[in-house]
Amino acid sequence: MAEDENKTETQPDAEADAAAVIAEPVGPEVFVIEAMDAGETEKVHDFVAELHYADFADLLERLSPDDRTRLIKTTRDIFDPEVLSELDETVRENVLAALGTQRAADAITELDSDDALMVFEELDEDRQKELLEQIPDEDRTFIEEGLSYPEDSAGRLMQREVVTVPSHWNVGQCIDYMRRKADTGEDELPSIFYDIFVIDVRRHPVGAVSLSTLLRSRRPVPVTEVMEEEMHEIAVDTDQEDVAFLFRQRDLVSAPVIDADGRLVGAITIDDVVDVIHEEHEEDIMRMGGVIEDDLYHASISTARARFSWLVVNLLTAILASMVIGIFDATIEQVVALAVLMPIVASMGGNAGTQTLTVTVRALATKELTGANAYRVITKEVIVGCFNGVAFAILSGLVAWLWFQSATLGMVIASAMVINMVIAGLAGTTIPIMLDKAGADPAIASSVFLTTVTDVVGFFAFLGLAALVLL
Amino acid sequence: MAEDENKTETQPDAEADAAAVIAEPVGPEVFVIEAMDAGETEKVHDFVAELHYADFADLLERLSPDDRTRLIKTTRDIFDPEVLSELDETVRENVLAALGTQRAADAITELDSDDALMVFEELDEDRQKELLEQIPDEDRTFIEEGLSYPEDSAGRLMQREVVTVPSHWNVGQCIDYMRRKADTGEDELPSIFYDIFVIDVRRHPVGAVSLSTLLRSRRPVPVTEVMEEEMHEIAVDTDQEDVAFLFRQRDLVSAPVIDADGRLVGAITIDDVVDVIHEEHEEDIMRMGGVIEDDLYHASISTARARFSWLVVNLLTAILASMVIGIFDATIEQVVALAVLMPIVASMGGNAGTQTLTVTVRALATKELTGANAYRVITKEVIVGCFNGVAFAILSGLVAWLWFQSATLGMVIASAMVINMVIAGLAGTTIPIMLDKAGADPAIASSVFLTTVTDVVGFFAFLGLAALVLL
Repeated sequence: MAEDENKTETQPDAEADAAAVIAEPVGPEVFVIEAMDAGETEKVHDFVAELHYADFADLLERLSPDDRTRLIKTTRDIFDPEVLSELDETVRENVLAALGTQRAADAITELDSDDALMVFEELDEDRQKELLEQIPDEDRTFIEEGLSYPEDSAGRLMQREVVTVPSHWNVGQCIDYMRRKADTGEDELPSIFYDIFVIDVRRHPVGAVSLSTLLRSRRPVPVTEVMEEEMHEIAVDTDQEDVAFLFRQRDLVSAPVIDADGRLVGAITIDDVVDVIHEEHEEDIMRMGGVIEDDLYHASISTARARFSWLVVNLLTAILASMVIGIFDATIEQVVALAVLMPIVASMGGNAGTQTLTVTVRALATKELTGANAYRVITKEVIVGCFNGVAFAILSGLVAWLWFQSATLGMVIASAMVINMVIAGLAGTTIPIMLDKAGADPAIASSVFLTTVTDVVGFFAFLGLAALVLL
Repeated sequence: MAEDENKTETQPDAEADAAAVIAEPVGPEVFVIEAMDAGETEKVHDFVAELHYADFADLLERLSPDDRTRLIKTTRDIFDPEVLSELDETVRENVLAALGTQRAADAITELDSDDALMVFEELDEDRQKELLEQIPDEDRTFIEEGLSYPEDSAGRLMQREVVTVPSHWNVGQCIDYMRRKADTGEDELPSIFYDIFVIDVRRHPVGAVSLSTLLRSRRPVPVTEVMEEEMHEIAVDTDQEDVAFLFRQRDLVSAPVIDADGRLVGAITIDDVVDVIHEEHEEDIMRMGGVIEDDLYHASISTARARFSWLVVNLLTAILASMVIGIFDATIEQVVALAVLMPIVASMGGNAGTQTLTVTVRALATKELTGANAYRVITKEVIVGCFNGVAFAILSGLVAWLWFQSATLGMVIASAMVINMVIAGLAGTTIPIMLDKAGADPAIASSVFLTTVTDVVGFFAFLGLAALVLL
C-alpha cells in the first residue's frame, strides 16, 4: 500500500486520466471495475487519489455492494473522510464496514462535529458503541452530547464551533482575536463561518456581526454598534423542518442556537439547511408516491417488505370500491357496456382529484393555506371541478354514445362525470385540510382517502344512475 | 397619509399589538379585513408598519384580490420593496398594479440587482416597458442586461455586485479597500458577501478568498497565498438546476460567474440557490401530480383550462383500458363477478408501479441512476414485484374465493396479480429511464404511461385468464 501511495505522487498524468475517464460516456465505474477485475490495483489507486470526494462518493453509490467493498479495501489508505457525509445511509454502512473499525473511527474523528454526528446518528446502537470506543475522549463527548438531542432537531444540525466575542470589545479586538486563534492552532475556530456572535456574561447572544460588516468597519468601533440585534434564535430542540422554513422565510445565512436557559450552544449555517431542504424534499416526493423512504440501495426483500404496508391499505380501498360495484351486479349483467365504461368515470375523478390534492398539500406545507383562506380555496376547487366536469361530461358522453349507440348511456356517463369531478375538487381540498387539522401529515395519507372517495363515488354515481335510467 | 405615518411613530404599543395578533389563532388577515371594513385605516397602517416584510407578504397572499388591493392602497406609503421578492407571481402582479406605476418602479429600483431582475422577468412585456421607463438609467441598464440572459440561467440568478481585488495585493490592502468603499458610499459593495475574488488583468478569476480566511490572516500576507485556487466557475448561460446541483454536490457557498470570454461578470451565493432548490422542488411535486404550475392564486377558469390538457391525456388512456375490457364483454356477461373484481388487479398494479416509478424518477433526478447501474435497478424492481405480487396474489385470491365461493376465480385473480405486479416493476423502471434517455422529463410523462400499462395489462391478464379458464 505504501508503494501505491508513492506511485501516486510520481504520476503527474493521473489527474488528466481521471478527467478523461469522467468525461467518457462509459463512466468511471466501468473503468474501475475492469481495472479491479484485471488486478491492476495501482491504476485504481491512482485514479481514486485524483477524484474529488463527491465524485468518489457517487462512484461508490453506483457500484454493487461487492465491488464497493473491493474498491474501499484497495484504496483504504487514501480514504477521504468527507466522502462519508456525501453517501446514502445504506451505502455508508457498507463503506464503514469495509474500512474496518479503526479506520472508520479515525475517519469520523477527522470530520467537523456536525458531519460526524450525521454519520453517527444513522448507525445502529451496537455499531455506535463499537466505534465510540475507538474515538478520542474529546470528540467522543461531542458526539455523545449531540446524540442526546432529539433526532432531526436543531441540536443535531448545529455546529458547536462558534466564534463568540464579549459585548465590550471593538472591531479591532475581534479581528486580532481571530488572528491569534488562527496562529495558535485552528482547533476552536470553525473551518468556515459567516457571522460572529456577541454574547453577554451569561453567554446569552445579544447580537450577530456578519464578516462582511466586520471587514467594512474601522478598528476602534465597538462591536455593539455594528452588530445586528435582530437575530433569529433557534431553540436546540426545534425540528429541522421548522429550521429550514425559518431560514427560507427570513432569508437567513446563519442563526444562533440556544439551550433552555437561553445560552448560546452552537450555530446553524445555510449550507446545513440546504441538506435539510433536500432531505425533506425527497421525503415529500417519496411519501406522495407511497414509499416510506428512499430504498434505491436496499435489498429486494427489505424493499418489498417496506412497500407492503402501503399496498395493503390500497388493497382494502380497492376491495371497498369492488363492493360498490357488487351492489349493481344485476344491472351490469343486463348492460355489460357499464362494466366497460365504469373505470373511465373513476379514473377521471381520481386524476382531477390528485391535481387538486397536489396543490392543496403543497399550500399547506408552505403555510400558504390557512384557516383564513381555506373556504376560498375549497370553493375555487369545486368550481374548477364543475368546469372540467362539464367539459369531460361532453367528451365522455359523446364517446359512450358513439361506441354503444345509446344516447341514454351517454347521458348517464356525462352526469356521473360531473358529479365525480365536483366531488373530486371537494375531497381534494377538504381531505388534506382535515388531516392537517388532526395533526397528521397530509402528504402521505391524503391520496388513499382521495382515491377511495373518487372510486366509490365514481362507481356509485355511474352504476346507480344507470340502474335508475336504463332498467 | 402623512398623518398616519406620524401616528406610527407616536404609538409604542403597535409592535406589541402586532405580535399579539399574529399569535392569535384567527390570524392577521381577519384582523386586517375587519379593521378595513370598519374604516379604521390608521389601525391597519400601524399594524402593517410593524410587520416583517416576509409576514406582510404571507398576509397579502392569504387575502382575496380585492382585499389585497385595498390593503396595498391603504399602506402604499410604507411599502417595503423586499415584500415583492417574497410574493407568488400572480399575487405580485396584483400588488404592483395596486401600487401604481411610479411607486412600483421606485420599489423595484430599491431592490438588489438579482431581486429586481427576478421581479421583472415574470411580468408581461407591456408591463415591463411601462415600468422600465420610470426606472433610473443605471438600474435600467442592469435590468435590461439581466433580461438578455436566458430564462432560468446563472445570468439571471447572479448578483452583479462582486468584490474583486487584483492578484498583487496583500490582505491589508484588501481590508483597507473594503473600508474605503464602505466610507465613500456602499453603492458598489454587495449588502452581504462571503468571498472576495482575485482577478488577473483580463478580469479572469484566479482565486477566491473567504472572509473568514481573510480575517484570520495577517495584513502583509499576499492574497494569492491565502486564496483558494480551485473555484467552480459557472458559465453565465448555465441552467439554474445545474447550478443548484453543483452547489449541493460540492458544498459551495458562493461561485464566480464568467462570460464566454472567461471574464468575471458576477457571483452566485448559496441563498439564491436555496430559492432555486425550493422552486425546482415545487415544480417536481406539481408535475408528478399532473399540475403544470402552482395555480393556488389563479382564477378558477384559468386553473381549469391549465389542468384540462393533462386530463385529456388521462381520458385517452382510460378509454384504451375500456377497450381492453370491451374485448371480453361476452365473458363478463356470463361471469359478472369479473366486473366486480377487475378494478382490484388494475389498481394494485398502478400503486405498486407508482412506488417503483417514484424511486426511479428521483434517482434519475439526483443522478444516482445511470447507465451503469440501470440493469441492476430494473432487476431489483422486478424481483420486488415478484415478492409483493405473490403476497397480494394470496390475499386477493383468498378474498375472491371466499366472496364468490369459487376457487377457480381465486386462482385467476392470483395469477393476474403476479403478472401485473411484475410488469409494474418493469414498467416503473424502464419507462422513466427511456424517457430520460429520449431527453424528456421523466417526472411529468411517466405516470400516464405507467398507469396505461398497468391498466391494460391488469384487465387483459385477469379477463383473458378468466376467458380461458372459466368458459
